Amino acid sequence: KELSLAPNLVTFDRAKMEDLLKRRFFYDQSFAIYGGVAGQFDFGPMGCAFKANLLQNWRQFFVLEEQMLEVDCTILTPEPVLKASGHVDRFADLMTKDVMTGECFRLDHLIKAHLEKLAADKKTSEEVKAECRDIVIKLDGMNKGEMHDIMKKFNMKSPLTGNELTEPIEFNLMFGTMIGPSGLLKGFLRPETAQGIFVNFKRLLEFNQGRLPFAAAQIGNAFRNEISPRSGLIRVREFTMAEIEHFCDPNDKRHPKFSDVKDTELLLYSACNQMDGKPAERKTIGEAVENGLVANETLGYFMARIQQFLIQSGVDPKRLRFRQHMANEMAHYAQDCWDAECLTSYGWIECVGCADRSAYDLTQHTKATGTRLAAEKKLAEPKIVDVVEAVPNKGILGKTFKKDAKCISESLAALNINEIEELEKKLGSDGSYELSVGDQKYTLSKEMVSVVRKKNTVHVEEIIPSVIEPSFGVGRVMYAIFEHNFRMRDNDEQRTYLSLPASVAPLKCSVLPLSNNVEFQSFIKQLSNDLTKVGVSHKVDDSSGSIGRRYARTDEIAIPYGITIDFDTLKEPHSATLRERDSMGQVRIPLTELSGVVHDLAYSKQTWKDIESKYPKFEQQDNKGLN
Amino acid sequence: KELSLAPNLVTFDRAKMEDLLKRRFFYDQSFAIYGGVAGQFDFGPMGCAFKANLLQNWRQFFVLEEQMLEVDCTILTPEPVLKASGHVDRFADLMTKDVMTGECFRLDHLIKAHLEKLAADKKTSEEVKAECRDIVIKLDGMNKGEMHDIMKKFNMKSPLTGNELTEPIEFNLMFGTMIGPSGLLKGFLRPETAQGIFVNFKRLLEFNQGRLPFAAAQIGNAFRNEISPRSGLIRVREFTMAEIEHFCDPNDKRHPKFSDVKDTELLLYSACNQMDGKPAERKTIGEAVENGLVANETLGYFMARIQQFLIQSGVDPKRLRFRQHMANEMAHYAQDCWDAECLTSYGWIECVGCADRSAYDLTQHTKATGTRLAAEKKLAEPKIVDVVEAVPNKGILGKTFKKDAKCISESLAALNINEIEELEKKLGSDGSYELSVGDQKYTLSKEMVSVVRKKNTVHVEEIIPSVIEPSFGVGRVMYAIFEHNFRMRDNDEQRTYLSLPASVAPLKCSVLPLSNNVEFQSFIKQLSNDLTKVGVSHKVDDSSGSIGRRYARTDEIAIPYGITIDFDTLKEPHSATLRERDSMGQVRIPLTELSGVVHDLAYSKQTWKDIESKYPKFEQQDNKGLN
Repeated sequence: KELSLAPNLVTFDRAKMEDLLKRRFFYDQSFAIYGGVAGQFDFGPMGCAFKANLLQNWRQFFVLEEQMLEVDCTILTPEPVLKASGHVDRFADLMTKDVMTGECFRLDHLIKAHLEKLAADKKTSEEVKAECRDIVIKLDGMNKGEMHDIMKKFNMKSPLTGNELTEPIEFNLMFGTMIGPSGLLKGFLRPETAQGIFVNFKRLLEFNQGRLPFAAAQIGNAFRNEISPRSGLIRVREFTMAEIEHFCDPNDKRHPKFSDVKDTELLLYSACNQMDGKPAERKTIGEAVENGLVANETLGYFMARIQQFLIQSGVDPKRLRFRQHMANEMAHYAQDCWDAECLTSYGWIECVGCADRSAYDLTQHTKATGTRLAAEKKLAEPKIVDVVEAVPNKGILGKTFKKDAKCISESLAALNINEIEELEKKLGSDGSYELSVGDQKYTLSKEMVSVVRKKNTVHVEEIIPSVIEPSFGVGRVMYAIFEHNFRMRDNDEQRTYLSLPASVAPLKCSVLPLSNNVEFQSFIKQLSNDLTKVGVSHKVDDSSGSIGRRYARTDEIAIPYGITIDFDTLKEPHSATLRERDSMGQVRIPLTELSGVVHDLAYSKQTWKDIESKYPKFEQQDNKGLN
Repeated sequence: KELSLAPNLVTFDRAKMEDLLKRRFFYDQSFAIYGGVAGQFDFGPMGCAFKANLLQNWRQFFVLEEQMLEVDCTILTPEPVLKASGHVDRFADLMTKDVMTGECFRLDHLIKAHLEKLAADKKTSEEVKAECRDIVIKLDGMNKGEMHDIMKKFNMKSPLTGNELTEPIEFNLMFGTMIGPSGLLKGFLRPETAQGIFVNFKRLLEFNQGRLPFAAAQIGNAFRNEISPRSGLIRVREFTMAEIEHFCDPNDKRHPKFSDVKDTELLLYSACNQMDGKPAERKTIGEAVENGLVANETLGYFMARIQQFLIQSGVDPKRLRFRQHMANEMAHYAQDCWDAECLTSYGWIECVGCADRSAYDLTQHTKATGTRLAAEKKLAEPKIVDVVEAVPNKGILGKTFKKDAKCISESLAALNINEIEELEKKLGSDGSYELSVGDQKYTLSKEMVSVVRKKNTVHVEEIIPSVIEPSFGVGRVMYAIFEHNFRMRDNDEQRTYLSLPASVAPLKCSVLPLSNNVEFQSFIKQLSNDLTKVGVSHKVDDSSGSIGRRYARTDEIAIPYGITIDFDTLKEPHSATLRERDSMGQVRIPLTELSGVVHDLAYSKQTWKDIESKYPKFEQQDNKGLN
């Protein structure tokens, strides 16, 4: 039910959109003149500017607004780091190969395609159809053995050649390389940016003067050697991530600004509803946290903020939901995880993950390095703790046991409370105690060791922080925004355009002289300088072609505002028309005010409505000039 | 002589600066808790913010101002691309290994260290000393054989063990990996971002509506597997580059905006002066281009713009020069190349390269792919060209030669003018002509082929553009700026700080309450909101410690402006002090105006002098509070 499509998606024509995106070089396959590489894309001028604007806004919205600590860590990562994080052992997809040609298939995709085909076949019995559908639903959580059984049961062959397939093979998705000339230091391209933050935790905590909670952020590229990348920007081998790691007290995941967002409504698709075949439900985040559906305030706060950011960046609110991970797909250490998913022509796709990773990563790196990645938490009030120690008399021990004295002392210090009490009892009853150190046994007398009881005052306790992680797949967010903003003019299928919000549009403004009359040139130059001065990116299009045709071109590259210099501009007081892309409405504005107006529009200081109410409407319709 | 140091460099203490940079986490070795990896660095919050600001300004200064086409291409690059560019065959350094331990040494560094040590030894004869010095100067241009001879002549051994060394080995500096699951598609991490632009040339030219000149730009990471990285940020394995490729007519390298910069003075260290042992000379770029020292206007324009950018970003003009590549160090295809070098405690280091790469790259990729990476140039006036063609009579050819007819037609079309004239002569004299196609020979009669002469009108000619490439090593620029802006307060060696220009400073402003009085809190919150609203990054420091001590801390992280909330702030009209980092001057400003003032200062709309003349001076010296 939650899959019901928004009206304009029904008529969505992906090929038409991709034609626009490629033709105007938003992005294209990398190394296209060399035949291209699957799963790699280059962003052209318009895609790159859109991406840069999106990331700049992300910085403003998250890093600046929340005073996060942004870092910039290296991509090349030595093996031990990714061994500790679990990526070396577990960051793999299952694949199977054609035994004759060596062609590789991602196993879950192969099984899914096979079973869907079978279920669609008229000759298949209802019973088998039901089984196929059931397997497809459970596929995400299946292990190697289960998938292998399904391959055998349905006698799967290579879909390309009909040849036999190998048993499932675990293929690690990290790109490996060797660091340095010796060829001995193995490294990987990072599969996520998060680890760079975790290994710097100590310095970041110190930078934050030892205080929790705080968040660190990172924007950067990550790499996954996908088995068979497809679906355009959705599944690629190299991609930009923007990740936040919010470190907080594991026993206190409240968020000071939660009250600011608690009334935000989200479309939540809980694990329970997924299992029960029920649709997603609209709830306020306050409600969801209160009744325990979303694990804690901090997680909820970020979900609401993620939604705000996506919508202001151009995601259609009607095609956005948060889907909770089911138990079998969630990482074993995660406490709760919600993906912000956007509905596209590829179905619902994960664009932002938002997980409570608990203390897993910091614990793993602590184990691997011996460096304690922990914070000190001030106790509400000092705690008096009883301490019992077995205190050696080092002089007598030394004389008696010589070089063994040191390890005896160390063993005494390592005794737990029960052992110390046992020792005390023995010394009292027998006058001596037999201490085992490795294979050796030492007999200790009352003179050599005494049991001391004291009270210590403790002001802090050590805690390993929990991590809440919002993780943005930048390319996927961009793709969803492209689809959600692809439009056609009424009654003209050929006039397609992108209705990107001005804040992320690649260029904010076009400047179009009505003709190549030389008198226009000084005005164009002046306007271009004015716009540059106020930081408004723009494009002068003085090519031939009617104004209507040129507006159609600037609409294609999502330019929200267009200025036309015409013969009236030459008259005093000088003025020009300003046109808004989506409504195609036009107003007449004095030249001296234009750059300021466009700046205010581009940076959301004023709305188009404000401008329309302030300046006279300009009536000539640009689409008249289209032929 | 040009090496004479600026006065404050003499007292420069690198260890002290590095201590500051590490302590306040501008940057640190990557994976430090794992022991670190040589040649890799992570930028902490302050370094990352400085870098982001620098890059944002770069975009504004170059991309927006010049309306360049910015792209964002992938790092992973398949082998054929880098084979064509020459990197697979030639992007290597020479190294030598300890035959016993396998320890690797970069050969030129090893030779240099050995000979410098020898030259410094009192026992060495004057003659040998002179020879050593001469070799060190020429080392950059030497090949494998020459370096090997020197190794043998001076009987060089491993400086660590005294063991024998291997013959020189060419070590390719690219990191290799395998793309996809088959293990058959070899790829590399790009060693420069430039190639991504070249392979997209056709689409970019099309985006620019076929017109030359235009420039493309890219910011991104590149990788070089250095043999023995050292010198901190100067020689690293992973680094951010910001590159521009300006494509222009090879016969017209004038630049329309050259007149804007022609009076800019640069310190130029020409190849001639280097060879003759003469110092660098100060010249205007107009003069240098006019007398041919700098090859053309476009190269000169970018050199002047590079200098402007570096100085506004914090490079000391007295420690900046442009050094011309000497013939033996310049790439064989380059027409001219000038490095912007900054003087640091490591000596003069290349921070920005500025080269005329001619048509080399586009030509290479054209050869490798068969895709013509060329532009059409409209001729000043249409040209009438004589065309001579050997036109086959396809009917007769087909009847006579059957399936061979097609390749005969193709061969005829491929004949050059001399061959056609030879054919015409033979047909005239002998009545037939013997055509060779591969191993076959065909006898053609007058009926089968005729020679046609005609005149074609040509409006355009095809040209392969030349490329002028300014290429910024972002980490090196940052390092030079760190050194050039490291300061100590008079009479207090312990109070070190960074005098970064506000435009690149990590944070623009601090907000410091005089004490933890609760009445201050609402003012802090209000001010913080105001600053966020106008986009001014800031840091509230409400930790304990005197104001002076807290200012010292914010000076360390280069915050240019500081606001103190004190007891006078509580009185109406509310006001606070604003302090400038370098002069430590303070003024009193109404609270309502503060965020606007800081915004204007941070974005160079007003100077500190403007503010001092407008608002009353605040007299209490902050350094009084230091104890």
